[in-house]
Amino acid sequence: MVTIAITLSYRGSDFAGFARQDDQRSVQGELESALRTLSGSPVETVGAGRTDSGVHAANQVVSASIPRIMVEDIDRLMRSLNALTPADLVVRDVTMQNDGFSARFDARSRTYLYRIAQTGTPPLFMAPYSWYIAHKLDIEAMRQAATYLIGEHDFDSFCVAKSAQELHNNELSTKRHLDHIQIEPEVVMGEKMLSITIQGNAFLHSMVRVIVGTLVEVGLGKHDPSWIGEVLAARDRTEAGQTAPAQGLTLRDVTY
Amino acid sequence: MVTIAITLSYRGSDFAGFARQDDQRSVQGELESALRTLSGSPVETVGAGRTDSGVHAANQVVSASIPRIMVEDIDRLMRSLNALTPADLVVRDVTMQNDGFSARFDARSRTYLYRIAQTGTPPLFMAPYSWYIAHKLDIEAMRQAATYLIGEHDFDSFCVAKSAQELHNNELSTKRHLDHIQIEPEVVMGEKMLSITIQGNAFLHSMVRVIVGTLVEVGLGKHDPSWIGEVLAARDRTEAGQTAPAQGLTLRDVTY
Repeated sequence: MVTIAITLSYRGSDFAGFARQDDQRSVQGELESALRTLSGSPVETVGAGRTDSGVHAANQVVSASIPRIMVEDIDRLMRSLNALTPADLVVRDVTMQNDGFSARFDARSRTYLYRIAQTGTPPLFMAPYSWYIAHKLDIEAMRQAATYLIGEHDFDSFCVAKSAQELHNNELSTKRHLDHIQIEPEVVMGEKMLSITIQGNAFLHSMVRVIVGTLVEVGLGKHDPSWIGEVLAARDRTEAGQTAPAQGLTLRDVTY
Repeated sequence: MVTIAITLSYRGSDFAGFARQDDQRSVQGELESALRTLSGSPVETVGAGRTDSGVHAANQVVSASIPRIMVEDIDRLMRSLNALTPADLVVRDVTMQNDGFSARFDARSRTYLYRIAQTGTPPLFMAPYSWYIAHKLDIEAMRQAATYLIGEHDFDSFCVAKSAQELHNNELSTKRHLDHIQIEPEVVMGEKMLSITIQGNAFLHSMVRVIVGTLVEVGLGKHDPSWIGEVLAARDRTEAGQTAPAQGLTLRDVTY
């Protein structure tokens, strides 16, 4: 057996999320099914980020242990995987890794991209990949607010409350380290987007979406940028903004 | 009555083309149906470009004559149109025009964008908006080939043969003037594209797609760039390359 890393892209719209589920269509389920067909026996995979239902990935990384014969022709393995997986999931790369490599535990950082459509009229080409906000957002205020989140903090205000509670019950930390948050206007497919790129060591459940929903409150002028500091200090999910919709979020990169 | 110009975007994938058809879903049909609902009587529209089935538009322009009361609140008219049209058609702008304005006959130039996916593995996010070519294209050769097409030429080699014949039968010209062709690599939604932008005064049926199909033959090294000059001189559709697939093409802009 040999350990591999698979880089894959998917459009999250029609998946019930990354994680394998018994009765629903998942990214992991589709990928493992293709690997099983090729290897002849069940293959378990581990993903770098457990993206929720509706969340996309440009470069998700998955590790797996497969029979050595399957990697003798990597190009052929990739072509076979792409022939066996559905159209909304594309394998981009397969690389050999040292034994024991885990896409999840060896990841040094994850970068997520959240797109807000600032199109004035509803987005069309980017509709499946953005959150449409008709009101013009104050980018400078959002950038200032974002600075409060950089570095190591306890992000339990920015996480599904039940999930934070469960981590705490298991004596696990809700501290995470954010390296940077970039907020840039850009035009994609001819449509005006506000792209929020967030890089950190790891993320709590829904953390990026709650951060975005909270930054948007500032961008709409409902709160001053310094309010984000108060939300962080409160360590209470109910203090933060709404969870931004899944379709705006893309797992962009994972670094090792 | 007052004359208006409507700027609209559409995803061509599920339309049988721009032009109204009795028994199929068309952009013009959907737009006219919404206008009729709002005006209470039939409204005829004229489009700047009769895009084929599967072709997209970022900024198609359509003219129409509607009751003056409908334009008293233009923002409201746009919101109403967007509420009445399907999700794959978005009205971007409505402006008042002088009487007699025709989106088709008053257009000074049209700009089309054709995207070729050079992703190595199949495109995902851009799959509905590009033609995937696995082989790496020679951009410099394609640029050189494109220079032969700039200026005024008889483009009957680059047009559906039956359509050229019909124009000739009616003593109409197949001469058109191309202002420029730009061929640029770009990354859209994280995927490598070769974007071919073609601006001209007007276009024959399938002209952009036959030009792209012919440029691709050069990009693949099947012909030298100067071959394009021979194809142009031959005035024979069978000399040119294949018609590039519809989904890669977007009507980007129309100028007046």
